[in-house]
Amino acid sequence: MSRSISLAVIPGDGIGQEVVAEGLKVLSAVLPQDVKLETKEFDFGARRYHATGETLTDADLDALKQHDAILLGAIGDPSVPSGVLERGFLLKLRFAFDHHVNLRPSKLLPGVATPLAGEPQIDFVVVREGTEGPYTGNGGTIRKGTEHEVATEVSVNTAFGVERVVRDAFARAQARPRKKLTLVHKNNVLTFAGHLWTNIFNKVAAEFPEVATDYIHVDAATIYLVTDPGRFDVIVTDNLFGDIITDLAAAVSGGIGVAASGNINPSREFPSMFEPVHGSAPDIAGQGKADPTATVLSVALLLRHLGYEAEAARVEEAVTADLTARQGEPARSTSEIGDALAVRVAG
Amino acid sequence: MSRSISLAVIPGDGIGQEVVAEGLKVLSAVLPQDVKLETKEFDFGARRYHATGETLTDADLDALKQHDAILLGAIGDPSVPSGVLERGFLLKLRFAFDHHVNLRPSKLLPGVATPLAGEPQIDFVVVREGTEGPYTGNGGTIRKGTEHEVATEVSVNTAFGVERVVRDAFARAQARPRKKLTLVHKNNVLTFAGHLWTNIFNKVAAEFPEVATDYIHVDAATIYLVTDPGRFDVIVTDNLFGDIITDLAAAVSGGIGVAASGNINPSREFPSMFEPVHGSAPDIAGQGKADPTATVLSVALLLRHLGYEAEAARVEEAVTADLTARQGEPARSTSEIGDALAVRVAG
Ligand SMILES: CC(C)[C@H](C(=O)O)[C@@H](O)C(=O)O
Ligand SMILES: CC(C)[C@H](C(=O)O)[C@@H](O)C(=O)O
Repeated sequence: MSRSISLAVIPGDGIGQEVVAEGLKVLSAVLPQDVKLETKEFDFGARRYHATGETLTDADLDALKQHDAILLGAIGDPSVPSGVLERGFLLKLRFAFDHHVNLRPSKLLPGVATPLAGEPQIDFVVVREGTEGPYTGNGGTIRKGTEHEVATEVSVNTAFGVERVVRDAFARAQARPRKKLTLVHKNNVLTFAGHLWTNIFNKVAAEFPEVATDYIHVDAATIYLVTDPGRFDVIVTDNLFGDIITDLAAAVSGGIGVAASGNINPSREFPSMFEPVHGSAPDIAGQGKADPTATVLSVALLLRHLGYEAEAARVEEAVTADLTARQGEPARSTSEIGDALAVRVAG
Repeated sequence: MSRSISLAVIPGDGIGQEVVAEGLKVLSAVLPQDVKLETKEFDFGARRYHATGETLTDADLDALKQHDAILLGAIGDPSVPSGVLERGFLLKLRFAFDHHVNLRPSKLLPGVATPLAGEPQIDFVVVREGTEGPYTGNGGTIRKGTEHEVATEVSVNTAFGVERVVRDAFARAQARPRKKLTLVHKNNVLTFAGHLWTNIFNKVAAEFPEVATDYIHVDAATIYLVTDPGRFDVIVTDNLFGDIITDLAAAVSGGIGVAASGNINPSREFPSMFEPVHGSAPDIAGQGKADPTATVLSVALLLRHLGYEAEAARVEEAVTADLTARQGEPARSTSEIGDALAVRVAG
């Protein structure tokens, strides 16, 4: 394990700046004294786009590439047309750095409010494919703006791309106590992609005899996520289905204020990127109201990815302990939460 | 309004037979004496597929075409490979009869259990496009079964297809007290289809100045469906997003036991089809345990489509009254529920 971390920091738009500051606070506090943390801040997002028209240049990618990992706050602002920063920055980065494992854990933590009745048990992780499916940008438009316009979106699925993410998900399931993996797709309608996913899933399953498997259509998966989320341990799914079900998963397990994610390149050929699932929330930006927990939990994923397992676990335990201790107390500010967590992880 | 109804009845597989019987019981009971109801039963589904290899032939389509409407129970059985009956029957019928308005109301009825905490107010309708998007079957597979396999699914969206369903949704929103229409899509990522949908939505909105509009990404829509379902009045969306969010909508508003749907061709060039959202549930088939409410509510949609508005309302009121009266009582059998509803609508 390297005893230095070179981290690219992208605060981004809206509340990104605030939550990233707390994430870094906790990261500094948890790292052993002898680990040198070097951070370099990058000014990407709406401000730069308006000033220069640029979202993410080749030079930017080269600069980011020099780092061990990337911590991102949030990118997006209503002043920028829909799609520009998503396609031009977020997705461009995921594709350029081949972030094919989009990791999104869902755990209902103590004292966190869920919209579900009763006391649901929620502790699963979604492994969302990150570089294929309907996210490739394949497709196009003819006769734009006329009554004869036709617009297509092509979901591209390759054996190579599906197998590597399915294999990653099996390995994660194997390492968890319950050892269960669910494939979520829509193979009764999207039969071309569905058969590819299902066949590869079944093939790889043979190599992991200890992992129990099942299959659920994406529409039915949304039902289970609200009626029986406890049935899930690890889920593997395509890029678009993963996008949809992880927002729902975040909602049922306490909201996007606590939902972390990692855009991971397991080969480490390129740096992986860690970010809260929430967006830039311009309506509350700059008011110290944003919950930095999702960013702090993303820092835990970052630590684990870089091999600092004990430190990752300490961050996660601190979040749980802090939430438990503060149950029912009035809301704290962004930096109050960050300070409390920094104290806990250091202690 | 025609004083006779010629109805094609497709009980189908599993619990289909049982729930359709109750739907017909209520339909007969609610129709005025002078309306002649003629039904013809069709034996489609798993049994026929196994016996003949056929799912839906041209001759079948010609026969179905002779009717004013179609009532379907459920199609699907684990003995049939995934996709065969879906593509070969259900989707083939929707496409052949140009069922472009897939109507799925969600209403939380009294005494019906929701997985959501608190007392959510749920009363909205999803207008799902039914003949385009990723459901067209466009796409394909190369190098099948090899490590170089590539499978594509093409979402096809046309100005013609989008405008007619968007217009239908605006008209429905206009006719409701709250007059609100939400477009659900993913226009920040699926930019080709997203722009087509968004532009047409905005264009048609200009013709409906009384209807308040907004736009939500499909991932965020799943969050609102569990945290604030009361914000929705009418939703219009594409075929796949509609599939996903209507299962979730059914789950939060009391489960698929009460979720009705209509596959509607508003031009009446071909008969429309009405069916419960639930599947064939082979595990409880033949035991009198299935809840026929979703089928009975689908009969209400059928009545409304054929111009029997007063009768449709009577069926819906009967369901509400019956559920209210039976709150907290032990579960009734399929036919007990059907009998109770038949008595109420006749009364
Ligand atoms: C902002 C958008 C491009 C992104 C996605 O669709 O992947 C977001 O919804 C997410 O889940 O990270
Ligand atoms: C069975 C399947 C083809 C169908 C669909 O995906 O449309 C079902 O899920 C539905 O919602 O009616």
